[in-house]
Amino acid sequence: MESMHGLKRTHDCDSLTEAALGEEVVLMGWVHRRRDHGGLIFIDLRDRRGLTQVVFAPEVDAGSHQKAHGLRSEYVVAVRGLVRRRPEGMENPKIRTGMIEVACRELRILARARTPAFPLDEDGEIAETLRLKYRYLDLRRPYMVEGLALRHRVCQAMRRYLNDRDFLEVETPVLTRSTPEGARDYLVPSRVNPGRFYALPQSPQLYKQILMVGGIERYYQIARCFRDEDLRADRQPEFTQLDMEMSFVEEEDVMALVEGLMAAVFEEALGVRLEPPFPRLSYGDAMDRYGTDRPDTRYSLELRDLTDVARGCGFKVFREAAAGGGVVKAVNAAGMGDLSRREIDELTDYVSAFGARGLAWVKIREDGSWQSPIAKFFTDGERAAMGERLGAAPGDILFFGADRAETVHRVLGELRAELARRRGLIPEGTFSFVWVTDFPLLEYDEDEGRYVAVHHPFTAPREEDVERLADAPAAARARAYDLVLNGVEIGGGSIRVHTPELQARLFEVLSIPAAEAAEKFGFLLAALEHGAPPHGGIAFGLDRLVMLMAGRETIRDVIAFPKTQKAQCLLAEAPSPVSMAQLAELYLKPGWKAG
Amino acid sequence: MESMHGLKRTHDCDSLTEAALGEEVVLMGWVHRRRDHGGLIFIDLRDRRGLTQVVFAPEVDAGSHQKAHGLRSEYVVAVRGLVRRRPEGMENPKIRTGMIEVACRELRILARARTPAFPLDEDGEIAETLRLKYRYLDLRRPYMVEGLALRHRVCQAMRRYLNDRDFLEVETPVLTRSTPEGARDYLVPSRVNPGRFYALPQSPQLYKQILMVGGIERYYQIARCFRDEDLRADRQPEFTQLDMEMSFVEEEDVMALVEGLMAAVFEEALGVRLEPPFPRLSYGDAMDRYGTDRPDTRYSLELRDLTDVARGCGFKVFREAAAGGGVVKAVNAAGMGDLSRREIDELTDYVSAFGARGLAWVKIREDGSWQSPIAKFFTDGERAAMGERLGAAPGDILFFGADRAETVHRVLGELRAELARRRGLIPEGTFSFVWVTDFPLLEYDEDEGRYVAVHHPFTAPREEDVERLADAPAAARARAYDLVLNGVEIGGGSIRVHTPELQARLFEVLSIPAAEAAEKFGFLLAALEHGAPPHGGIAFGLDRLVMLMAGRETIRDVIAFPKTQKAQCLLAEAPSPVSMAQLAELYLKPGWKAG
Repeated sequence: MESMHGLKRTHDCDSLTEAALGEEVVLMGWVHRRRDHGGLIFIDLRDRRGLTQVVFAPEVDAGSHQKAHGLRSEYVVAVRGLVRRRPEGMENPKIRTGMIEVACRELRILARARTPAFPLDEDGEIAETLRLKYRYLDLRRPYMVEGLALRHRVCQAMRRYLNDRDFLEVETPVLTRSTPEGARDYLVPSRVNPGRFYALPQSPQLYKQILMVGGIERYYQIARCFRDEDLRADRQPEFTQLDMEMSFVEEEDVMALVEGLMAAVFEEALGVRLEPPFPRLSYGDAMDRYGTDRPDTRYSLELRDLTDVARGCGFKVFREAAAGGGVVKAVNAAGMGDLSRREIDELTDYVSAFGARGLAWVKIREDGSWQSPIAKFFTDGERAAMGERLGAAPGDILFFGADRAETVHRVLGELRAELARRRGLIPEGTFSFVWVTDFPLLEYDEDEGRYVAVHHPFTAPREEDVERLADAPAAARARAYDLVLNGVEIGGGSIRVHTPELQARLFEVLSIPAAEAAEKFGFLLAALEHGAPPHGGIAFGLDRLVMLMAGRETIRDVIAFPKTQKAQCLLAEAPSPVSMAQLAELYLKPGWKAG
Repeated sequence: MESMHGLKRTHDCDSLTEAALGEEVVLMGWVHRRRDHGGLIFIDLRDRRGLTQVVFAPEVDAGSHQKAHGLRSEYVVAVRGLVRRRPEGMENPKIRTGMIEVACRELRILARARTPAFPLDEDGEIAETLRLKYRYLDLRRPYMVEGLALRHRVCQAMRRYLNDRDFLEVETPVLTRSTPEGARDYLVPSRVNPGRFYALPQSPQLYKQILMVGGIERYYQIARCFRDEDLRADRQPEFTQLDMEMSFVEEEDVMALVEGLMAAVFEEALGVRLEPPFPRLSYGDAMDRYGTDRPDTRYSLELRDLTDVARGCGFKVFREAAAGGGVVKAVNAAGMGDLSRREIDELTDYVSAFGARGLAWVKIREDGSWQSPIAKFFTDGERAAMGERLGAAPGDILFFGADRAETVHRVLGELRAELARRRGLIPEGTFSFVWVTDFPLLEYDEDEGRYVAVHHPFTAPREEDVERLADAPAAARARAYDLVLNGVEIGGGSIRVHTPELQARLFEVLSIPAAEAAEKFGFLLAALEHGAPPHGGIAFGLDRLVMLMAGRETIRDVIAFPKTQKAQCLLAEAPSPVSMAQLAELYLKPGWKAG
């Protein structure tokens, strides 16, 4: 292979325009595409920035023209040549360098390349396993570079905003002690301390609280976190959070800061202007109106409660749901009365996966009357009352759910999203933020037979609800807030408990014995005894946020080296076997079956 | 405890001056110190920024004066009060807020505090185990806050400089495959893939090379790295690197970029102006002149070679060293002829720990003659020749080493440093950078009976030395460069091998069988076959760099939550035991002895 020695890149492949006509330049990059035409050889030379056409002509330099015959896709080359105007009719207005070409005076082949496992000069689907195994090829595509570049800009904008507001970026340990986030920890055996293990952090929660007790006052970190969960949906064993914590604040302070942060990030990284403050919904209202605590507010299709009307109606399913402590709710799919019977069947199938035992529907005819298998079960008055509550108009179709509230919310929430997708109600490039607040602090876990924390056991109850912890724990509201973007929870946080008395009391309500609390969270309790300021914070899922900003379908497309559903890295082939000697050094014995 | 609700902090404890006289302000922080005087109660209120005096006077607010009797050190309070001038004679010009005080109108006690395990309002040594266990107290001291704030500024300056130069910050995996850096990996058992393990990265070396093959061109990351080594000296199981890689570059490009980076970082984070370019020393010259490849160039005391003169002299120790392939070298400790016999004995003891079998010395008398036990063994001519080479003058003392080159270099290198420390030759606040280049690519490992890479097996040999790999591997020089600051290696890097042919050849010279190379580095070799650009990079030890900038003695003082020599976190008590059920889930059995 030839050396680049003596040549220095003068430009990238996106920077040459007619302003550079007549200049001698040096470009380096990959052969994106080659074509031979009229005795000349043309290549599109590619680098991270763009493409520039290079032409090898015998009359300009016979040697390089000769050598160019050997060029193949993805060879790495250095080219010294003259910038000249492309012949008339050969311009490409789609790219910035489309008016010029570089006539090669010297070509050096810096590296050869095998035929790539998938083409880089065409658009189109490529199997993801191939993309992951040959990530170094995949990364060369603008699709991937743009995602990583956006991620870069997002991180820098976050830091700039927080730095300007007196935050300190502090690194917390990766080799740490199990944090109690509910998920399973990744463990790291200690060689120096036989029989003992580090845990990789599920979040820096405890350490950031310790930093507040330590007087750091304003902390952030773009932190790697780890959860050994079964990887359903779009999860990764390691993921990245923007983690923040502030002292001497209340909910409003954190939320206002975050709104400014998001506005700055979207403006700087994406050129999109947001308009804070973001709307707020209580948890109760969110469930009521959207059937979920992660409402997608880019479209309407809100749920309406009809339980009171249904209570005395002639339709047994509704009546019994209402009588049995359940609810009857409906969505008005306005203007979708043209849904065919087949489409309605598909929707019924779709929601059955979420627990629906059917999907009652009503189409509103031109004259306002009901077309529906269940129309006959209702009086005129009931139909009028329900229609009014739903704002029903001719051409609309109403979908009903009648069951336990939990089921109805899940079903109608999912139906809502599916209707929006099917009917193209989701405006592209729209970013709809909403805060969800007033979560319950605790929920009763039937399996465990005790109350568990909805967020985590360090979340503070509302001050006026502290007294209810004793008699009505489920009624206590948390000082917690989630930030939802386009129906995806991108961040969640809370004001924390900052006195040892209240923290101990919470452990009690959670039925965590004092000994266990001391064992698991002893150092936090000890810290709280040494003068902790009121504090609170929030953490954002960076992968998800960037995915939404980039308009991608999976977080894997905004992570340089993601793992598969089986938690494997196809590129490096990790995890991999280790020697018995390595295991013995860690005082471990194999417990798996060979093969 | 009282709530802060209804109060909003208006200022930090470092911002009030006479400009704020007459204003009502709200401060929140910790009670740093309390004293009662003349019926009044005074506290120094502390936050991350500084101190402000608060006075509780019955005539201003009887209630808060009463409540202030209960204040103890490290209580967390909110104070609303009036800024007023301190009475004459009570000013404290040492602090920014020293001319004013805040007369309290409302006091709220936000949290009580136990008596701290060590005083926070006095300077003085505190046992490090206490500092680590109660890190939340330690962090409240300006000593720690300043270190972390400097670290923050250093990171931001690094990012700003690299962002401005087209670098992308890319995150590489923490759950990865063993990287071949020579040290021991931390392993993470996979639950989903029984019998397989991730390794925590010793550095992102392979991934950053993959990013270059992927066309990212300019990458950096402030990355956590992990080494399971025995923790002698000042090491941590996890540490932080500024890791960088660039495509289409040669040594000079990387070094020039790094010089600009260091200048920007020192200017922005510390207000110190550096003057690049930094001097360069070849590995050979560094060993020759300083006895080490990490020379502290803040002071002179250079080594001089006297082997030729010694060869025929009458002093058997020198003559035999020279004859046996060793060297005779000396340091002129100029002006230190006043060293006492006892001090010389101490120095002799000191260097014996580094392998010296004695320490010959010569004092130069006023008349230029030698005062020394060994003076008699040399002719006038030999004495003159040696004196001239060492620039010896009356009042100087010369120290000699005669042994194998390796021993002489180690001994005189350590002696040099010890003399500089003892005689206060090291100027405070000076930052002396030097590049060390032209390292050998390979060295012969007697134990393993093969050549091993001096840096790592991806370091490129100099182009003109590639041919020597076959016949004289030890003579091949690496395209590597280390950056040394004040005698500490703060960074090291190289131009990498970028063709599969040369990489395979290197594995061969290193006696790594093709099968093992494929098993360990297969994905890198595969990547190189797909068109890799010439590339190179460097990595900096962030902990060490910040330690040097802050003038600290240990990296633990610039890490928020460091571990002990036994790799334990005294705060969180990590690592800790896990349940047998957790172990079983990972298909592991205990191999340690209980107890």
